[in-house]
Amino acid sequence: MADPAPTSPESGGSNQAEDALFDALRALLGERFSTARAVREHHGKDTSFHAMEAPDAVAFAQSTEEVAAIVKLCAEHKRPVIPFGTGTSLEGQIQAPQGGVCIDLSGMQEILEVNEADLDCRVQAGVTRKTLNTYLRDTGLFFPIDPGADASLGGMAATSASGTNAVRYGTMRDNVMGLTVVLADGRVIRTGGRARKSSAGYDLTRLFVGSEGTLGVITEVQLRLYGIPEAMTAAVCSFETLAGAVDTVILTIQSGIPVARIELLDEHQIDSVNRYSNLDLPVQPTLFFEFHGTEAWAQEQAEMAGAIAEEYGGSGFQWATKQEDRNRLWQARHDVWFANLALKPGGMGWATDVCVPISRLAECILETRKDIDETGVLAPIVGHVGDGNFHLTFVLDPDDPEDLEKAKAVNERMVMRALAMGGTCTGEHGVGSSKMAFLQAEHGEAVGVMRQVKLALDPENLMNPGKILTV
Amino acid sequence: MADPAPTSPESGGSNQAEDALFDALRALLGERFSTARAVREHHGKDTSFHAMEAPDAVAFAQSTEEVAAIVKLCAEHKRPVIPFGTGTSLEGQIQAPQGGVCIDLSGMQEILEVNEADLDCRVQAGVTRKTLNTYLRDTGLFFPIDPGADASLGGMAATSASGTNAVRYGTMRDNVMGLTVVLADGRVIRTGGRARKSSAGYDLTRLFVGSEGTLGVITEVQLRLYGIPEAMTAAVCSFETLAGAVDTVILTIQSGIPVARIELLDEHQIDSVNRYSNLDLPVQPTLFFEFHGTEAWAQEQAEMAGAIAEEYGGSGFQWATKQEDRNRLWQARHDVWFANLALKPGGMGWATDVCVPISRLAECILETRKDIDETGVLAPIVGHVGDGNFHLTFVLDPDDPEDLEKAKAVNERMVMRALAMGGTCTGEHGVGSSKMAFLQAEHGEAVGVMRQVKLALDPENLMNPGKILTV
Repeated sequence: MADPAPTSPESGGSNQAEDALFDALRALLGERFSTARAVREHHGKDTSFHAMEAPDAVAFAQSTEEVAAIVKLCAEHKRPVIPFGTGTSLEGQIQAPQGGVCIDLSGMQEILEVNEADLDCRVQAGVTRKTLNTYLRDTGLFFPIDPGADASLGGMAATSASGTNAVRYGTMRDNVMGLTVVLADGRVIRTGGRARKSSAGYDLTRLFVGSEGTLGVITEVQLRLYGIPEAMTAAVCSFETLAGAVDTVILTIQSGIPVARIELLDEHQIDSVNRYSNLDLPVQPTLFFEFHGTEAWAQEQAEMAGAIAEEYGGSGFQWATKQEDRNRLWQARHDVWFANLALKPGGMGWATDVCVPISRLAECILETRKDIDETGVLAPIVGHVGDGNFHLTFVLDPDDPEDLEKAKAVNERMVMRALAMGGTCTGEHGVGSSKMAFLQAEHGEAVGVMRQVKLALDPENLMNPGKILTV
Repeated sequence: MADPAPTSPESGGSNQAEDALFDALRALLGERFSTARAVREHHGKDTSFHAMEAPDAVAFAQSTEEVAAIVKLCAEHKRPVIPFGTGTSLEGQIQAPQGGVCIDLSGMQEILEVNEADLDCRVQAGVTRKTLNTYLRDTGLFFPIDPGADASLGGMAATSASGTNAVRYGTMRDNVMGLTVVLADGRVIRTGGRARKSSAGYDLTRLFVGSEGTLGVITEVQLRLYGIPEAMTAAVCSFETLAGAVDTVILTIQSGIPVARIELLDEHQIDSVNRYSNLDLPVQPTLFFEFHGTEAWAQEQAEMAGAIAEEYGGSGFQWATKQEDRNRLWQARHDVWFANLALKPGGMGWATDVCVPISRLAECILETRKDIDETGVLAPIVGHVGDGNFHLTFVLDPDDPEDLEKAKAVNERMVMRALAMGGTCTGEHGVGSSKMAFLQAEHGEAVGVMRQVKLALDPENLMNPGKILTV
């Protein structure tokens, strides 16, 4: 638990009305309410480049009822509410540009139910994906969605997270069956349910998934689970051209090979991990595969993918089934983030993502690479290519504001390029504050409908204001 | 095209304001606007037991722009709008209890684009699933969702349809990537897009999927496509007990066998098809399987499922790969509807569905069967058991109102039983007017949120009023 020190003189932003709110919150939560600067600042900064924007106070909630009470008090005092899971979001989702009360849900750690026969479970929002998978270990089941960070499942639902194996298992949108949500006025609703499918009314579950705290606070999540596959096979293959790698991905998926992960590292990214991890991978566009199934089926999948890769100029196709061999093959992929940061000692990482129809992926990556090189920024490319989703990891000099400006320009051009190709401004990181400028370009008049929904559910604009859209 | 005769004296419901509306619609559409009784009555009756409730007029639209113009005129005159695809919905979705203008979209037959490399396509709302699959035949791709009827893809999106292979390929919710929607005020929006995944703002696509015309009129649908599998294997197996059949399904899915279809017919249903199709299947709960994959993998799946079935008292497990042999094995499943109607010559069919967590499926079916027998109605049971979804097909004497009352009581008890087990009042047929009474029991306070969304987008309640929820 973070420091629950009482309000310090420098906590800032307080006035008489706030004091009344804060008194009420302190009466509700005791030591689990804090206005200490250190606590506030810890909650005002994500893992990306965004400037810290601290909330006025942090409330550490332990139950849905407490969240409802906090939100109701904030509504009475017309103060913003910012939900916080693990702080690992990337697009400014947890910053508090208008102050207000951050509700830290990390204390909501209960795994409420696991239904093995039905392959589902219900958890409180603060449970992280690794905690859940550790808990599930003896059941033979697992929750596959893996955005990299050990994020909270409430936060992953709120940002519609996905990651490397979305190509096989889908995103949070596909795997959240239901939610408990505290609305802007403090009402508590349960959406969805435990049935595998339902046509009973509007799909509120998927309205709240990806709403980034702007429509309500997610306090419980019902999730789909999967049987741990009998066998996993990993493979790696280098390509002469990026187009060859992407064509391999396209044909692999068209052929119905249910690849579990298929990741692309461009030659700059390979160079980066070669240096960092002392590897000697050919400095070429490289695909990393993972196949799940029975032993025979996982092997058949690897063989089919290998044959396709060969057709498109792939070479050195290696595959492995034993865990240590799989880890060795995938090491380069796992080391990406730290390898990139090591390229510029003291550098600051900024991961941005777009997603395009896969037929445009090679073109979008190549044009973006050209832009990166011409602009003179450092930004290796890694992609969840089965979905047409790729990331730039800018490595910036924090003392050189021009470096950040250049990166912003490259990012904007990449987004507009992706949109022109029928893609989206973010495949999995969300909009937050960073990508609000692109929402209109992507969705046009539909943004007006999003705004109508937002105002219907949060007429005072108190739920995570300044995120996704202006109202 | 239906009879475009001019307004007949018996068209009814018209008044001066309507006449102004009708004049404007006639000016817009010419012969594609009709108030003829035959045309109106044809559009006021679905394929279920519901009484005919005709709209005041029918407008045959051919483009999104026309739909927008029609909706705008109806909004000006505050007249209801009821979208119509093929009229194959089951829960009263197309009836016009408050009159108004039915927009028939069956003339919107254009397949706008097929992107083979990206496995997606865009169609106008009137294209049916069979038309699309015929069109796709030479591409090696197909659209899998199969609700039985050759429904329009716009209608399937509007009702969140699914069917036998949802266990493998998901429902319309999972396979609609984006929509063009005409809103209540005539604005046209495009939701979603062609990227395989997106976190860019609220998921309006899935808000409109399953909204049954109450939030807007769907005029175009972007869909996921799949490669036609190299091999398909069908299998059938009889069980001593229903529990044995359901346990086979549970373990099959837990084992990660990606069964493409897994259908349950209870002993009454088997008896019905034995009579109708002159078969001699054991009169026992029976599972019908279909597996998709490479030849080796489809065969391995069938063998694994066969081994599981044997463990749970399955006998006579047969499987086949050649199309004629597969058709022979599945004949009983295909004949269900007509076999049931033949049980009572002149009988009227009413298909209702619920969906429960699969661990409760055997219990829910057995209690429902007991209720059917004790109440004395005719209702074989068939289930998409991989999802926990099952159907009763009541076969009713249209001249005996008591028969319908008994069926309604059985249906209500089945729904409440499913809800008590954590299930839903409809897995795939939607709410329409028939299941509105159960929405509150299922979703509680969340229905209030659905109502807020409805009123935000359709404040005058003109879009398919009297469906899903009261406002």
